[in-house]
Amino acid sequence: MSGARERLVVIGGDAAGLSAAAQARRLREAGALEVVVLEQGPEISYSACGIPYWIGGQVSDRDRLLARTPGQFEAHGIDVRIHTRAEAIDLPAGTVTTSSGEVLGYDRLVVATGGRPVRPPVPGLDADGVHGVHRLADGADIRAAIAAGAERAVVLGGGYIGLEMAEVLHARGLAVTVVLADPLPMAQLDPDMGERVCAAMGAMGIEVHPGEPVREIETGPDGVVRAVRTDAGSYDADLVVLGLGMGAEVSLAREAGLQLGRTGAIEVDRSQRCVGHPEVFAAGDCSQTFSRITGEALHIALGTHANKQGRVAGSVIGGRPARFAGVLGTAVTKVGETEIGLTGLSSRAAELAGYDARAEVVEGTTRAGYYPGAEEIVVKLITERGSGALLGAQVVGGPGSAKRIDVFATAIWAGLTAEELAGVDLSYAPPFSPTYDPVLVAARVSSRIEQG
Amino acid sequence: MSGARERLVVIGGDAAGLSAAAQARRLREAGALEVVVLEQGPEISYSACGIPYWIGGQVSDRDRLLARTPGQFEAHGIDVRIHTRAEAIDLPAGTVTTSSGEVLGYDRLVVATGGRPVRPPVPGLDADGVHGVHRLADGADIRAAIAAGAERAVVLGGGYIGLEMAEVLHARGLAVTVVLADPLPMAQLDPDMGERVCAAMGAMGIEVHPGEPVREIETGPDGVVRAVRTDAGSYDADLVVLGLGMGAEVSLAREAGLQLGRTGAIEVDRSQRCVGHPEVFAAGDCSQTFSRITGEALHIALGTHANKQGRVAGSVIGGRPARFAGVLGTAVTKVGETEIGLTGLSSRAAELAGYDARAEVVEGTTRAGYYPGAEEIVVKLITERGSGALLGAQVVGGPGSAKRIDVFATAIWAGLTAEELAGVDLSYAPPFSPTYDPVLVAARVSSRIEQG
Repeated sequence: MSGARERLVVIGGDAAGLSAAAQARRLREAGALEVVVLEQGPEISYSACGIPYWIGGQVSDRDRLLARTPGQFEAHGIDVRIHTRAEAIDLPAGTVTTSSGEVLGYDRLVVATGGRPVRPPVPGLDADGVHGVHRLADGADIRAAIAAGAERAVVLGGGYIGLEMAEVLHARGLAVTVVLADPLPMAQLDPDMGERVCAAMGAMGIEVHPGEPVREIETGPDGVVRAVRTDAGSYDADLVVLGLGMGAEVSLAREAGLQLGRTGAIEVDRSQRCVGHPEVFAAGDCSQTFSRITGEALHIALGTHANKQGRVAGSVIGGRPARFAGVLGTAVTKVGETEIGLTGLSSRAAELAGYDARAEVVEGTTRAGYYPGAEEIVVKLITERGSGALLGAQVVGGPGSAKRIDVFATAIWAGLTAEELAGVDLSYAPPFSPTYDPVLVAARVSSRIEQG
Repeated sequence: MSGARERLVVIGGDAAGLSAAAQARRLREAGALEVVVLEQGPEISYSACGIPYWIGGQVSDRDRLLARTPGQFEAHGIDVRIHTRAEAIDLPAGTVTTSSGEVLGYDRLVVATGGRPVRPPVPGLDADGVHGVHRLADGADIRAAIAAGAERAVVLGGGYIGLEMAEVLHARGLAVTVVLADPLPMAQLDPDMGERVCAAMGAMGIEVHPGEPVREIETGPDGVVRAVRTDAGSYDADLVVLGLGMGAEVSLAREAGLQLGRTGAIEVDRSQRCVGHPEVFAAGDCSQTFSRITGEALHIALGTHANKQGRVAGSVIGGRPARFAGVLGTAVTKVGETEIGLTGLSSRAAELAGYDARAEVVEGTTRAGYYPGAEEIVVKLITERGSGALLGAQVVGGPGSAKRIDVFATAIWAGLTAEELAGVDLSYAPPFSPTYDPVLVAARVSSRIEQG
């Protein structure tokens, strides 16, 4: 490398962008690489995933959702500019034009513009009283609505944001109705597992209306939300929360001419490089990723992937080869006391991907049956017929259930078969699991049937 | 196989013996194989691991520790004989002589005589007030001692039985002193991790005296225990509990001439066959096993291994080849709110096994830092220098910590490197982990240093 100082510009000051900046800085000194991070908002590095729990009151102080401050990055020689929006990228010129009017040249560019909440194309969505759960400001707005006396909430969507919002609004004393287009909540689950989630929500007193796409947000003469209408009914609401998932925020990239993938997110190679522009990287919720199992293109907005992808980009920029190893689609969430975990392919996804798949369901307990706090847990394991390869797993159960999905994720990642997993020396003591952990029972049942 | 009906005799009606019997029965019909289980005690299939929690009152009813009854096995055509002790095995004749005077011929034999609590060779050990924690009768005796007003307990040993007994006796309101010969509790842990356990016990109000082998159980003129004496002091006690670990119960096997291994347990091949006697199997706490990592002979008394080993023996007897895949030494326990998990090799064990090992310690939280119930967790990861192969892991922390050891166990089992583990798509949501789970941070820190 020549003695000339290069400049890395990072667009977006959250998980992916900051990981890229920090890793590049770690590998190249300030004298060799200038690092500038542009963040349009007032904060960097906030935990969007924590917003529901701030609304719910589990997190008392908004500032606790801020993991790091610009000053912490400045101290490492990273120039973080908040309230600074990247207005345009000129790829041939190698410049970014900012909202402050500056035209910033770059040698390397990381696009980390994040996600954009999915908004259904229905009338009334911009009404007063309709809120996303994306920015800290959204959280403040919903808290204010509750403080002002909101009593009836409709949550649109039954994915993890929908479930978490339903839980916290219910806990705050609101009457909560969840309206979703999918036939069941947590649509990545197999239907039998999704039904368990749906039943658990009902048992809590949350009203669930699956299979009902929203048609209109009805407002009063004051322009404030009054109800949510579907083909099946109209549900009164003085507060509507959008939990319809997260798309990729790609307007800047699209306008610049960066190639988008078939998921609509920015297409990148395994080193997070954009197509045809080896000096430009994309990472996090704005970028397309791939399934470690099938190789297929996916878009999954999740902080853990964003961190890792940003780190890969930062490594490459810092001169150390790195590759992102793919995702399994692992997810955990909870609604009330019911925990949900999933990883890999569902039965349907396995079939669509061309696998001859089979599934086994086992019921067990989270602790030794005689130990206090032993809760029901249901484990579903999806394997390839013949080879016994693990394809996916799903868990629904009481406290202590969800994190068991990590064992399946590790086993799938490593390419274990069901029979191999059944042999693994997992931990056992009465406060932590039955002698045969349900994870092992599921693996054993799957392998036993495989053996005929 | 000829039409003649064969007989399988199983000595021992607990985890290993019953797994062997059930699996053999599953594979061969009653017309082809007679299955007889001899159990010297009054019950089969009881959870020895649950005894501390019965004493502690977490388990109210002793019968809840009985997983299965003889009747359930009879219904599957397995002849379970309680109160029937195997007095002798005649290998050349192929017979077992029972305490009822019967000489029972066998075609296949499974020795599953279980473990024997370690008893130090010190005076006074047979005094009134000194109890093991092995049989249900031991649990009843300790409960009776507490009910009769015992106030001061000394627990001998700082392994998991010692810790669990210290916890439950403390919870029952006794003043508890733990006396151990090892320099720290949970001696399989590295010293820095063991110190954390020791400090947690002290903070609970449990008095811990490490490095003090017991020299004598002092008794009063009534022959009842009065104190435990070490070289450093004498500790008053009206109740003494033996938590010194579990050896192999091999007297019957030794007298019969079956070969014992260097651990003192019965030596078996990977199919649980005894040396030189292909028709005789041993499984569970009486048998020797091996490390999956080093291949080295080990003796580990644990119900999960016993189940799996019994199942292997039963499979082979049933005509289906099977091999036991080894152990990692995974263990979990808790003392108060402090959870402990470990798997694989400690730093010292890795060194003794000839590895050029290095260790990293990371501190984190069990949940997102801002989420209620986020507790401190410390993870230690031991890897091979150069290859980055995972050798062992240890976890000490608050509720939610211990079960994370299963991810390491699965990763070690599958042969992942630290760098590979750092990439695994583990689950994340604020109630379950920080964005970067401490498991991944430990793997990443280990792999980063490996990269120089």
